[in-house]
Amino acid sequence: MDDRYDIAIIGSGVAGLSAAVNSKIRNKNIIVFGNENLSNKLNMAPRINNYLGFYNIKGSDLKDKVKNHIDSMGISITYERINAVYAMGNYFVMSVNQKNYESRALVIATGVQSVNLLRGEQEFLGRGVGYCATCDAPLYRGRVVTIVGYNKEAEKEANFVGELASKLYYVPMYNKDLKLNNNIEIVLDKPVEIVGNNKVEKLVLKHREINTDGVFILKDSIAPDQLVPGIELDGGHIKVDANMKTNIRGCYAAGDCAGKPYQYMKAAGQGQIAALSAVSYIDSLQK
Amino acid sequence: MDDRYDIAIIGSGVAGLSAAVNSKIRNKNIIVFGNENLSNKLNMAPRINNYLGFYNIKGSDLKDKVKNHIDSMGISITYERINAVYAMGNYFVMSVNQKNYESRALVIATGVQSVNLLRGEQEFLGRGVGYCATCDAPLYRGRVVTIVGYNKEAEKEANFVGELASKLYYVPMYNKDLKLNNNIEIVLDKPVEIVGNNKVEKLVLKHREINTDGVFILKDSIAPDQLVPGIELDGGHIKVDANMKTNIRGCYAAGDCAGKPYQYMKAAGQGQIAALSAVSYIDSLQK
Ligand SMILES: Cc1cc2nc3c(=O)[nH]c(=O)nc-3n(C[C@H](O)[C@H](O)[C@H](O)COP(=O)(O)OP(=O)(O)OC[C@H]3O[C@@H](n4cnc5c(N)ncnc54)[C@H](O)[C@@H]3O)c2cc1C
Ligand SMILES: Cc1cc2nc3c(=O)[nH]c(=O)nc-3n(C[C@H](O)[C@H](O)[C@H](O)COP(=O)(O)OP(=O)(O)OC[C@H]3O[C@@H](n4cnc5c(N)ncnc54)[C@H](O)[C@@H]3O)c2cc1C
Repeated sequence: MDDRYDIAIIGSGVAGLSAAVNSKIRNKNIIVFGNENLSNKLNMAPRINNYLGFYNIKGSDLKDKVKNHIDSMGISITYERINAVYAMGNYFVMSVNQKNYESRALVIATGVQSVNLLRGEQEFLGRGVGYCATCDAPLYRGRVVTIVGYNKEAEKEANFVGELASKLYYVPMYNKDLKLNNNIEIVLDKPVEIVGNNKVEKLVLKHREINTDGVFILKDSIAPDQLVPGIELDGGHIKVDANMKTNIRGCYAAGDCAGKPYQYMKAAGQGQIAALSAVSYIDSLQK
Repeated sequence: MDDRYDIAIIGSGVAGLSAAVNSKIRNKNIIVFGNENLSNKLNMAPRINNYLGFYNIKGSDLKDKVKNHIDSMGISITYERINAVYAMGNYFVMSVNQKNYESRALVIATGVQSVNLLRGEQEFLGRGVGYCATCDAPLYRGRVVTIVGYNKEAEKEANFVGELASKLYYVPMYNKDLKLNNNIEIVLDKPVEIVGNNKVEKLVLKHREINTDGVFILKDSIAPDQLVPGIELDGGHIKVDANMKTNIRGCYAAGDCAGKPYQYMKAAGQGQIAALSAVSYIDSLQK
């Protein structure tokens, strides 16, 4: 099938991009999902001293070097947030905003979100709390929805859901110009707790409360087992062996999502190993 | 004790130097053993495309970047080849040319030597074949010794042994100006086989034969279990867990010596993990 990539890489931090570079060198047909700015964590780092070869470099400068590297190799990033991956046996389906992508092998390099859970978040998960607003949007047609957005990508989801919901509140957890449709109410406050009986009834913020039927929390990365149902974890991280292989055939993981320490070189090294393992896997399929 | 370092790092390739940088950032007192040119393998690489951040860089240029990085951090390399490491329980002793160095923790980052064994090399190991000429020199006082040298460091050993041996042949396996004492006979030929009965009697080369009591083969790196007696291997590589821990308490390994793939980013990432593990280990000792 034409549309089936050899390797799909989810995440555009150093782990994902190291995987991309190594897969591309091995002549694989790849797709990389991620962000325009590559990685917030990379961009935000004030000074990096432990990325061998660059001493005392600003995160945003290292990002430029990495961007330059992938550009020179003709690697582009597809700006989509993957919400769910389905392992189909000998291929994977990534679904996002009514589109499907397919690949033979998969490298997960989604990083970790170091945001604390809200009180009630865990308790109401699946009963009004969700991490993918566009996926669940049909359930909220004509109802009240609140989105807690941790990044600009969340705005796209908000605009989409805002067309179906009777009312949409948007709580931005970042400081940037918001590009939201006019019918969306922006709430500049700090979420504290999600409350309800059987299901979500309201979101309590520091200075006000919002009655709402659903709360979507859109972070930089969602838990790996929500992204890839059936993937085995080890203390919150994806369980990998020395070749970065997960419990799912053809599926590899690298970087922060695959465990500590949370560091660039470790992430880049693991991205390389994951890619080379995925390449061997694909080559073994074709024999 | 004043002379006891926190962490000794054996090897000055990217694995060892990534370990050095990360240990130093954590304020540890370190010693790094290696070469002036850091790593032959790094220096020799014609073009590197998979070290994220540097596209299409010459190995020698990447070496300069790395050198610059460690220089900026005040990390220096001690130009010694460690021949043997003894694990003493809660510290390590590295012995070299009658000197001893001590450290609380150890990172092995010695790379691998991709040189084929000579015919007879394995068979006569310990019976005339050795990997450390200076260690065994006393045994060869007044006898005939042949040194097969794979790098310039071997010349120092040759000059030392040449003072004791009745005759010293030196077979250089590289093209560089030799700095050898006048009493040493240089043999420009390709070694093929070591022969003898119970013990070494001669070295057969492509175009001649040399009668000799001992043959020392001085490679860039020796087998890890010769370097650190008691270390557990897995198919020729040092066996490590996800934290780069070996079977010996306080001893970590990283880079090519810790397994495939043989690649820079993987080596640098593992060096980082090994260092951070060694740092935690030391901190746990001091509590
Ligand atoms: C302020 C700060 C300073 C730091 N300083 C240092 C330092 O000096 N040295 C050091 O070694 N480390 C440092 N770190 C840690 C370092 O940032 C991380 O270890 C590193 O970014 C991990 O890389 P990664 O590729 O695994 O994940 P990330 O960099 O987090 O990248 C993951 C990417 O994947 C994207 N993504 C996630 N889910 C999806 C999805 N479903 N679909 C599409 N894209 C998705 C994310 O948006 C993100 O762009 C610092 C971190 C911070 C926050
Ligand atoms: C020609 C060539 C091209 C390559 N191209 C690429 C490439 O494009 N991309 C890529 O990712 N990889 C490439 N590689 C592989 C890469 O060179 C290795 O994976 C990498 O060098 C491993 O790093 P390391 O730190 O583990 O070991 P090394 O680089 O081998 O460094 C080990 C160092 O430790 C020293 N040492 C060993 N024993 C001792 C001792 N007892 N005492 C003191 N010092 C000691 C050695 O002399 C050496 O300097 C290439 C290799 C070669 C040979």
